[in-house]
Amino acid sequence: MTTPWADPACPRDDRVEALLAEMTLEEKLAQLGSAWPGVESVSGNVAPMQDVFARHTEFASASKDGLGHLTRPFGTRPVDPAEGARQLAALQRELMGNTRLGIPAIAHEECLTGFTAYRATVFPTALAWAATFSPALVERMAHAIGSSMRRVGVHQGLSPVLDVVRDYRWGRVEETLGEDPYLVGMTGSAYVRGLESAGIIATLKHFAGYSASKGARNHAPVSMGRREFTDVILPPFEMALREGGARSVMNSYSDVDGMPAGADPSLLTGTLREEWGFEGTVVSDYWSIAFLRTMHRIAATDGEAGARALAAGIDVELPDTLCYGEPLAELVRSGGVAEDLVDRAVRRVLRQKAELGLLDADFRPEVDTEEPIDFDPPAHRAIARELAEQSIVLLDNRDGILPLGQDTPSLALIGPCADDPNAFFGCYSFPNHVLPHHPGYDNGIETRSLLDALAAELPGTRIAYEQGCPVKDIDRGGFEAAVEQARRADVCVAVVGDRAGLFGLGTSGEGCDAEDLTLPGVQGELVEALLATGTPVVLLVVSGRPYALGAYADRAAAVVQAFFPGEEGGSALAGVLSGRVTPSGKLPVQVPRSRGGQPATYLHAPLGGNSEGVSNLDPTPAYPFGHGLSYTTFAYEGIELSAERIPTDGEVEISCLVRNTGDRAGAEVVQLYTADPVAQLPRPVTQLTGFARVLLAPGEQRRVTFRLHADRLAYTGADLRRIVEPGEIAVMVGSSSTDVRLRGTFHLTGPVRAAGADRVLHTAVDVG
Amino acid sequence: MTTPWADPACPRDDRVEALLAEMTLEEKLAQLGSAWPGVESVSGNVAPMQDVFARHTEFASASKDGLGHLTRPFGTRPVDPAEGARQLAALQRELMGNTRLGIPAIAHEECLTGFTAYRATVFPTALAWAATFSPALVERMAHAIGSSMRRVGVHQGLSPVLDVVRDYRWGRVEETLGEDPYLVGMTGSAYVRGLESAGIIATLKHFAGYSASKGARNHAPVSMGRREFTDVILPPFEMALREGGARSVMNSYSDVDGMPAGADPSLLTGTLREEWGFEGTVVSDYWSIAFLRTMHRIAATDGEAGARALAAGIDVELPDTLCYGEPLAELVRSGGVAEDLVDRAVRRVLRQKAELGLLDADFRPEVDTEEPIDFDPPAHRAIARELAEQSIVLLDNRDGILPLGQDTPSLALIGPCADDPNAFFGCYSFPNHVLPHHPGYDNGIETRSLLDALAAELPGTRIAYEQGCPVKDIDRGGFEAAVEQARRADVCVAVVGDRAGLFGLGTSGEGCDAEDLTLPGVQGELVEALLATGTPVVLLVVSGRPYALGAYADRAAAVVQAFFPGEEGGSALAGVLSGRVTPSGKLPVQVPRSRGGQPATYLHAPLGGNSEGVSNLDPTPAYPFGHGLSYTTFAYEGIELSAERIPTDGEVEISCLVRNTGDRAGAEVVQLYTADPVAQLPRPVTQLTGFARVLLAPGEQRRVTFRLHADRLAYTGADLRRIVEPGEIAVMVGSSSTDVRLRGTFHLTGPVRAAGADRVLHTAVDVG
Repeated sequence: MTTPWADPACPRDDRVEALLAEMTLEEKLAQLGSAWPGVESVSGNVAPMQDVFARHTEFASASKDGLGHLTRPFGTRPVDPAEGARQLAALQRELMGNTRLGIPAIAHEECLTGFTAYRATVFPTALAWAATFSPALVERMAHAIGSSMRRVGVHQGLSPVLDVVRDYRWGRVEETLGEDPYLVGMTGSAYVRGLESAGIIATLKHFAGYSASKGARNHAPVSMGRREFTDVILPPFEMALREGGARSVMNSYSDVDGMPAGADPSLLTGTLREEWGFEGTVVSDYWSIAFLRTMHRIAATDGEAGARALAAGIDVELPDTLCYGEPLAELVRSGGVAEDLVDRAVRRVLRQKAELGLLDADFRPEVDTEEPIDFDPPAHRAIARELAEQSIVLLDNRDGILPLGQDTPSLALIGPCADDPNAFFGCYSFPNHVLPHHPGYDNGIETRSLLDALAAELPGTRIAYEQGCPVKDIDRGGFEAAVEQARRADVCVAVVGDRAGLFGLGTSGEGCDAEDLTLPGVQGELVEALLATGTPVVLLVVSGRPYALGAYADRAAAVVQAFFPGEEGGSALAGVLSGRVTPSGKLPVQVPRSRGGQPATYLHAPLGGNSEGVSNLDPTPAYPFGHGLSYTTFAYEGIELSAERIPTDGEVEISCLVRNTGDRAGAEVVQLYTADPVAQLPRPVTQLTGFARVLLAPGEQRRVTFRLHADRLAYTGADLRRIVEPGEIAVMVGSSSTDVRLRGTFHLTGPVRAAGADRVLHTAVDVG
Repeated sequence: MTTPWADPACPRDDRVEALLAEMTLEEKLAQLGSAWPGVESVSGNVAPMQDVFARHTEFASASKDGLGHLTRPFGTRPVDPAEGARQLAALQRELMGNTRLGIPAIAHEECLTGFTAYRATVFPTALAWAATFSPALVERMAHAIGSSMRRVGVHQGLSPVLDVVRDYRWGRVEETLGEDPYLVGMTGSAYVRGLESAGIIATLKHFAGYSASKGARNHAPVSMGRREFTDVILPPFEMALREGGARSVMNSYSDVDGMPAGADPSLLTGTLREEWGFEGTVVSDYWSIAFLRTMHRIAATDGEAGARALAAGIDVELPDTLCYGEPLAELVRSGGVAEDLVDRAVRRVLRQKAELGLLDADFRPEVDTEEPIDFDPPAHRAIARELAEQSIVLLDNRDGILPLGQDTPSLALIGPCADDPNAFFGCYSFPNHVLPHHPGYDNGIETRSLLDALAAELPGTRIAYEQGCPVKDIDRGGFEAAVEQARRADVCVAVVGDRAGLFGLGTSGEGCDAEDLTLPGVQGELVEALLATGTPVVLLVVSGRPYALGAYADRAAAVVQAFFPGEEGGSALAGVLSGRVTPSGKLPVQVPRSRGGQPATYLHAPLGGNSEGVSNLDPTPAYPFGHGLSYTTFAYEGIELSAERIPTDGEVEISCLVRNTGDRAGAEVVQLYTADPVAQLPRPVTQLTGFARVLLAPGEQRRVTFRLHADRLAYTGADLRRIVEPGEIAVMVGSSSTDVRLRGTFHLTGPVRAAGADRVLHTAVDVG
């Protein structure tokens, strides 16, 4: 006979209550904990301070009372997919067989640039998804990622990263969706829908404020007030919950205005659950509960750290149980922590286990390993390629040197990112995240460097390659040969940028923060040397963050920006250079003019962007937010607004015609910006309010219509309430945040209105 | 017969009410306005956007209804002191004779590095005062400054700057008292007491948050939460009001978390008046009310800008009436602004005029110009010299190369700051602030470059001077000659740093923000070239901000830091180099290791200072806060705490012996730091809680006793109330924030206590 809690026919919450009633304190706490089998096989850090906190524990003893989460069954070491699936199932069997209640664990994995598993598709990094301005494509990618994970028994993915970029120096910029909260929210929600539609729990991170750390140093404190936090940092999370349906949230490591997120009940319970109605789980970022003791120093013991996190609203401790196990149990037994708080968290975990089928009597952890398991099937690779192609941003093409075409006799391909396939992978890709700690393995996937791809793409061109210098090290030994090749060639393509890595292994990625925005190492000097040859230089930056290109912009024949474009990145870049691909990416971050002056992003009130008369520093970027050229041209005309005046809870339709005026097909990202010229408080000079990617054949024209609700103009007013104010709103439609082609205005009328939790979060778009 | 309001025998408030009752709306508003006669004589900006806002107005028409303030009667052009006094009196006579009520104006001036008037003593810049850790000396200086101002009919001085440094790139760092709120508060309060004791109204600025602008760009928005604002930014202001008795406050230009200070009633009325009980005037920073319309864009008209400022609590518009005159009058007449708000501000102005004697029937504006007026008398010069000598910081003296002594045969003195007396003046000194806009005048005061002073100080040494390069421009033409001289000499003294100026004229000063902390221009390259000669290099940095010295620290034979040391700076520096002066200055800001990574100061929670394991960036400075060596040595011993446990409203005495263990007299700044190892929220790893400058003869020892009240450990807790928490407190006594010589602990016992507006603000010190 099946116990009621194991019966799928019973209502979920009844099952949860029945199971909870059966549990001892130790069994409850076990459901809030986790274990990371095999962590000892990793020779270096894949999480901050792993070397300090990770420990080998016998799985049997770590899980004797049960286990909430199984940490990274695939992302710790290279393993064949089927073998990995068998090992995961074996661990689940052990849990089911050797614990009193026999409940399997939720298995979670990283999945930012794809499933972080050996031989899985390496998609472009998140910043590249954002550069496509194509949420639909991102949703398809995430569904593909989720399918691979679900196939082998993984239940939860620790993505997407919804931190809004505030400082380009931060190492994790590459993991984000850029500096505009709306673009982050739209793209992030699409990712969540894709992952969740494959049955994988999406995890929104890092909640919240992580990206604005002082000096852009990872984990450093965040100086920020409520208004900025509410208007810039929180919206993508709210959107990904309400419009994406994410079922899990991960806390940020850092503290905002002195309050660590992991100990903040007003954030993790007040905002998240009481205000937004979230019912999923909050999981801790790795070791962040222990960090409350060791790094924030707001707890004297592991138990106290656990108590603060639990009270704040963290349900599950990852990646290993340090504080939520026996240390917390002692406090519960002694009356220092109310068992109700434990029950609150356990209910949330068990509800998810019920939804995942893990409580069902007939649950079987084994997956089909007879059928071959391919983590990088052609369909996924096709998405990776499409994303890569759409994400490449043509910043400048002064003399129309691009595309190179088939008639380029000779080309010098120079730079440390030109012949290294890993240079195209983000920091959370398996090759850059895990493999450095397992020497002796190859990447396990087929990929092409730019050199190889370009040779295939331009068979009639003589291509001479020189590395010139390394990405990071100070070594000018290769300059001479590089300059010589550049001098001899008709065109020089300089491929500079980042190598993604973790904690000092790279120039971009977690823990790889930049002191300033100079190109890493001596790459800037290499570019100068190449420019000095007189040969036209196409500057191609493949990086995880924007770098200061102001010094080269006026001298390079063309400038191309790619954010780690993944396993199809070499082909995509070669396609853009050759002209096979018409570039259509747009900048999700500004490309700054100069190396200093951070933090500074496009989203700012007047004094944040114009220093004329008050400071000698000019914060205007080399290339603005939303910028990106094409090999064709687009005309904008016929702007129409459906109303001149709408109430503060009304809607206005803004439409215009976009026409491809060139001679090749191309996609344009039509961007809608708004501004509030006079308001209660300083407002951004311009802010992205809607966008539409439109593919147009030569001569083709389409009408793009944005349905803008007044809620989208809400902001946190003087009294810290979110309001929609009456008054004039300026409308700008164009090809970037500064390349405005059409303007209009309308008026909001009526009283100041409070915009609540049910407000409209996105601007509907119709492409006629 | 005298009207009651003109009768000094009547109580002040009765006089004010009587006068107010007589006034028309226009006369009231005139008292809230100002005029800047002669501004048209300035050929460039001495205030931000002066070129946009300043206008020539006939004084008679500008003051037809009276006038609140007269702006900068001395600081606009070079004028002989007596002639300036006569002109000021003539303007007052005009006001008294040509307006219905005949009320004179409050004349205000700048007075940061001294009275900003022609031929007035140029004292060291504020950052240098802070480096002395000697509030008593700063108080004497301010009294001297005030005496000169009072002598010629000036009533109010627009100093001190109490902004706590948050980012070294900010141009106005030189005007501040450093990065520690307690040091700023103690030094600033002393300045206020000195100025006010001379009868001058001190003006605290910039209230509040100005220093933390994004990217350190002047006027840029400030990202900051309530907790940091309350614990770091506000304390110096509260201290200078409660312990200094300042009678005026000036608003900050910038917005904090989106709220411009000039339109913030919770700051200018709530905190300042309701919480702190302030009864003086709030004056606007120059044109900042108009900026609410033009730069913050929170008002559509000048009148609306005026209305917002008035409602928030700005009483007087400076430097000229743009918004508070007719634009505001119209709104009052139409009922858009309550006349009560006008009356509230007028009362405050009139109370000060009554206190200054300006309402007295027998007031005479004329001052004695028979007796010669000397703005730079020997007594003031002596204070300037004492301050300069005590402010110079010996950062490093690796081989004991300093002092040079009389037996140095030859010395190469190299660098752009070595033979330029203006290189020792701050940006608010008359020579650097005003004279650049009046070509053809000399500085008007006697001063000595380092070259001249050193020649006098070391008569037996052959000194060869080369500029090497300019301060700011990219010009390496002088390198060769400089290197040649360095090569030939026994010792090279490299004198690099800043030139103070306004809005792009300098490398430090208002509007001269730095992109990063590289030495300006090619000075870093010059230092490298000099180090490469092999001749021992004494690196002497004379600047307005700390620069990144990490690259040179280990190779220079000695490193000396001076913050613009004023008219006696050359002599003081020469005295330190020769050994006549034993250095005793301590760093009021860190000297960073590397050019990037800002913002970052010493006052931080653990994650703000230690990135080990989480970021590749190392934020530890080259030289820490409070650091400064001497030519003698000091031993610390015998720490005693009066109690192991004190209640959360108690007091503990911490004392120790300090002994001069060297063979020459010297002063040590004994520094008390505390830390709260486990608290409700992340707390600073160390924080200055007390200090004492102690002069000791060779072998002499003294006992230094700090009386520390628990209130001094208060901070803004999780619920945003200021609390004193029970628990362990770590005590550190030493020679800098990291050179800790003695340690102790005590416990705070009892309940968490709220620390209110009457709390103890400073740590009493006794030197036995």
